[in-house]
Parts: sequence; C-alpha cells; structure tokens
Amino acid sequence: MTRPTLEFWYEFGSTYTYLSVMRIEALAEAAGVPLAWKPFLLMPVLDHLGVGNPFTTNTAKGAYMWADLMRRAEALDIPIERPSVYPPNSLVTARVARLGLDEGWGVAFTKEAFRRHWMNGVIIGTDENTQSSLIAAGQDPEPTLARALAEANKEALRAQTAQAIELGLFGAPSFVVDGEIFWGDDRLEEALQRAAGRR
Amino acid sequence: MTRPTLEFWYEFGSTYTYLSVMRIEALAEAAGVPLAWKPFLLMPVLDHLGVGNPFTTNTAKGAYMWADLMRRAEALDIPIERPSVYPPNSLVTARVARLGLDEGWGVAFTKEAFRRHWMNGVIIGTDENTQSSLIAAGQDPEPTLARALAEANKEALRAQTAQAIELGLFGAPSFVVDGEIFWGDDRLEEALQRAAGRR
Repeated sequence: MTRPTLEFWYEFGSTYTYLSVMRIEALAEAAGVPLAWKPFLLMPVLDHLGVGNPFTTNTAKGAYMWADLMRRAEALDIPIERPSVYPPNSLVTARVARLGLDEGWGVAFTKEAFRRHWMNGVIIGTDENTQSSLIAAGQDPEPTLARALAEANKEALRAQTAQAIELGLFGAPSFVVDGEIFWGDDRLEEALQRAAGRR
Repeated sequence: MTRPTLEFWYEFGSTYTYLSVMRIEALAEAAGVPLAWKPFLLMPVLDHLGVGNPFTTNTAKGAYMWADLMRRAEALDIPIERPSVYPPNSLVTARVARLGLDEGWGVAFTKEAFRRHWMNGVIIGTDENTQSSLIAAGQDPEPTLARALAEANKEALRAQTAQAIELGLFGAPSFVVDGEIFWGDDRLEEALQRAAGRR
C-alpha cells in the first residue's frame, strides 16, 4: 500500500504559512509521510472566487489575525517579528521557488525567504530577500533569476495556481491529502494523521 | 484575585457555534471558570465591517467549511446532521435567548434550539424550533414570545450586538477573556486556559 503524500500548498505572502514552514519538515519526517512543497499565488485564486484578502478587506479580522498569529507562534516556540509590510508582493519569490523545486533547492530557498521576512525584517519580494535567500540556498542570483523569470517557469507557476483552484483551495497554508483539503496551520496535525493513515 | 469570566459570544446561524454549545459548559466547569452566554446577531456586525458571510460569498470556503465541520464533530464525538437550510434566520431565536438569559432559562433554550437544528432537522428560526425549544426549557411559548418581541428586549439584543462590534468581533463563536478575543470553536481550549490563568 502506498502511503499518500502530504501536499503543502503555500503562498509567500501568507502569515500563518510561516508557522507551517517552520514546522512541517520535522513533523512529516516523524510521521514517515512524503512531503511535496507546492508554492502558488493566492490572489489569482481569490480573484477567481470573486473575493478579496479577508485580512485587508475586514479590518476586525485583520487585527485579530495578528493577535492570534503571535499567540500561536509563542505557543509553538517559533521566533517572530511582525514585518513592516503586509501583504508583501510574493510574485517573484513564488516564481523562484517554483523553479527551485524543479532543481532541488526550492525547499531551502523557501525557508530562507520566510526566515528573513519573519525574523530579520527583510521583506519577501525585495531584491535583498530574493538574492540573499538564493545565495543561502547555494544559488547564483543572477542566472537563477533569469531562469525563474523565463516564460516556461512563469507558465509552470500559473499551472500550479490553476491546479490550486481546481483542488478547491481558497487560502494558505493548505494541506492536501488524496484530494482532501485541510486549511490553516492549525490543521497541519490533522492532515498528517490522515496521510499517515491514522484517521 | 478575581478569576476572569469566559464570555461566549454566539450566533444561532453559525455552524461551528454548535460544537461550542455542546462543549463549553463541561469544559468551563472543569476549569472552574465563570461562563457568560452572549447571543448576538452576526449579520449587522459584518454589515458594519462592510463584508459578507464568507461561507456564502466564497463558494470554495463554504464547501470546505462543511467538510471541516463534519470532521471536527466526528473527532469530538458530537452527533451532527447537515441541516437543510443555511444560513437560517436567527433573529427571533436570538431575541428569545437574550430574554431567557435575563430570566434564567436562556442557556437551556439555546441548547435545545441548537440540538433540534443539528440533530433533528428542525431549522432554527422556524416556529416549530422556537416553540418546542421554549417548552423544553420550561417556558410557555406565547407569552414568552410576546416578551421577547417587545421593544425593550429588541433593544437589549441590539445593544449586545453593538457591544460585539465594539469588542472587535467579526465571527462566531468568539470567546472573550478580559477583552481578548479567541475566535472559533478550535480556540475554545486556548480561551479557557487564558481564563484559568494558566497561560
């Protein structure tokens, strides 16, 4: 019997995704569950659904999100500093990650980009974040960015975002196991249990 | 030192609120935390915030909500049948509950109304639900409804809804401890820990 893969659908502009980025590898490894990283762009998904970002269109929900995020980070013992920009422009970072996942350095790049944004105030989407995250992931920024911004790779990210819509995603992070959706960092454990066949 | 009260802000049309209604009394008692039931109307709150019901305006989120709700009910061992109507019209039920909380039977009425809606398919807001829930809570339906629909009681519910807006609420169920908001049935344990002074 094949053990199902835990698909981690993430958006670089998403706040709760940071918590999952910091947790998911160790948890998946401990559960013996294969893990697939799936960067996508949430805004085209929300546009397709005809809705906006709930944290910017609903001020009360936005305020609550920051309080809840900080409480969860503290409970999970994850260092966190509220970045100066929300939401960051995640387009280029997502394209780079999409390329990196084809080339074997996408997970390292993803973690470096999130860590810089949430620990060091180096905003995702800035040249400084992209370049230093690439270097930390062992890549030469200039040629890598050229490949990331080539049409074939742009199309690969568009296709992945279209797949997110097809799956029925509407937020990030989302975890998908055999087509079943678990939405939010606080559903990561439940998704892992499903993938591990324990529920 | 006074132990803070756990305020349970709920809306009769809210789906996840059913789970909290079934859980909160035993949990609060076990934690030794005073519990205050606060029915309010969510739609005026969302109107005030300029947003709609996310489960009806965002079809993907709505579909996910039902799947997640059923999974959570199963995990919590709470019997549940998806009602034929969503959202129900909760106005009269909320007015009755608001009155009942002044008169000592509001918690019993609330539980009866939710149980009928989620276990027996008797939709909240229908005469059948209101009347049979009142009888089960030991009240004579006709005179009680007359008091519930009197101007003073309507005003009491409006005031409570205004207080929800002031607190910064944007969804239900919400738990408030010393002004701090915990949103969603899946934050009930965290709110209880805060009220009990354990975190």
